[in-house]
Amino acid sequence: MSRSLSQGKLYIVGIGPGAVEYLTKKAEKALLGSEYVVGNGTYLDQMAEVIKGAKIIRSGMGGEVERARKAVELSREHVVSIISGGDANVYGMAGLVLEVAEKEGDVEVEIIPGVTALSAAASLLGAPVVSDFAVISLSDLLTPTDVIERRLNSAAEADFVIAIYNPKSRNRRQNFGKAVEIIRKYRSDDTPVGIVKNATREGETVITTTLGKIMDYNETIDMSTLVLIGNSESRLWGNRIITPRGYQRKYEY
Amino acid sequence: MSRSLSQGKLYIVGIGPGAVEYLTKKAEKALLGSEYVVGNGTYLDQMAEVIKGAKIIRSGMGGEVERARKAVELSREHVVSIISGGDANVYGMAGLVLEVAEKEGDVEVEIIPGVTALSAAASLLGAPVVSDFAVISLSDLLTPTDVIERRLNSAAEADFVIAIYNPKSRNRRQNFGKAVEIIRKYRSDDTPVGIVKNATREGETVITTTLGKIMDYNETIDMSTLVLIGNSESRLWGNRIITPRGYQRKYEY
Repeated sequence: MSRSLSQGKLYIVGIGPGAVEYLTKKAEKALLGSEYVVGNGTYLDQMAEVIKGAKIIRSGMGGEVERARKAVELSREHVVSIISGGDANVYGMAGLVLEVAEKEGDVEVEIIPGVTALSAAASLLGAPVVSDFAVISLSDLLTPTDVIERRLNSAAEADFVIAIYNPKSRNRRQNFGKAVEIIRKYRSDDTPVGIVKNATREGETVITTTLGKIMDYNETIDMSTLVLIGNSESRLWGNRIITPRGYQRKYEY
Repeated sequence: MSRSLSQGKLYIVGIGPGAVEYLTKKAEKALLGSEYVVGNGTYLDQMAEVIKGAKIIRSGMGGEVERARKAVELSREHVVSIISGGDANVYGMAGLVLEVAEKEGDVEVEIIPGVTALSAAASLLGAPVVSDFAVISLSDLLTPTDVIERRLNSAAEADFVIAIYNPKSRNRRQNFGKAVEIIRKYRSDDTPVGIVKNATREGETVITTTLGKIMDYNETIDMSTLVLIGNSESRLWGNRIITPRGYQRKYEY
């Protein structure tokens, strides 16, 4: 990676699930040390207190490419943070920003990881994700539908815990019901399911149910919801989900 | 969940990949407010500065069940943190602690998520994990070998980015080579691969290579290594890995 001779630098910062208290110290330090902070309005608002000293460049959802290009351009001469909800990698900005930097590059880039929406949701639900898991986005804006469906089939068949991001995309609200039907081919109706909306943010909603009853909550589920489907060993404990890691095969309590 | 009448509380705290700067503010607050901190020696040492005011209960790796039981017991009357490397869920302590609490319970439990080793490794490698991914541990201590192999086959076949935790277990050092052979049935030899050891800690090692050459690094890979295998669209950019999220199908740069 070549470095420019100027003082610029670009941080791609995972800010975590939303509340400022889930920011890492490293992410906070990068934000506090940045002359410019680039991001979409929702994430900028969540970080308002931390970034109040910086010049803010905000764009709406969907303006990702323009935002990435602007951040790369500014980082030739300035210290810039571009912020990503959750982790910088997991459905985050790192990919797009590096793609832009690769083409328009000659900037120094540092990526700062964050707490994923998945980890935040799992914590609220108990311990659903302590064994092998697969993470699938139902957004067919960027991935062809047949690839998504193949992944759902494979993950369900191989008994992965399944985390579903973007269960409802704006124009294709039927994708979620279809995904549930695929998973039900392989997994019993009493499989525990967690539905988490706005984890750590205003309007936080945590629901535990089962695969057979999940469509009762169809109206609740939207783009900002994360759905976690247990594996064949997961069980409900009150309103929590426990997926044993296998200790019960090895130890007596 | 019933709550005890005493003042006790149990935090299950994901401390992140290792360095203190990857701790969230919420995790730090829980640790600073705990009378007891329970964990294995490695993680306690990483957090030494933060937990110096607490009573420390340390046990070696493998003493997980005993440690969980002790933490649950103490939390009836005290504020206790039990610490988990990375996230509390992802191969973390949340599962075991809730299993113990379920049996010996009547304690108040709060789970605090953390930055996973996976997110830390991905950040060091660039942007390998921005699309759908599967996470598999090769440790056959807690999961039967045939289940692990089925998951490797399914994840490779469905073109998930694959993250491998515990690539070498203490007694079965051949598992990793076998896993690579399974993945190579489905993915080309020039698929980018990242090998990250001790992310954010002393001895941090970051290697980018390809699936065909991965066994050249066989001696480097140990229990504390995370291996990331790209999907069919991943590519190398210098010493970084980029997995396009699909923007190239949608936008012109």
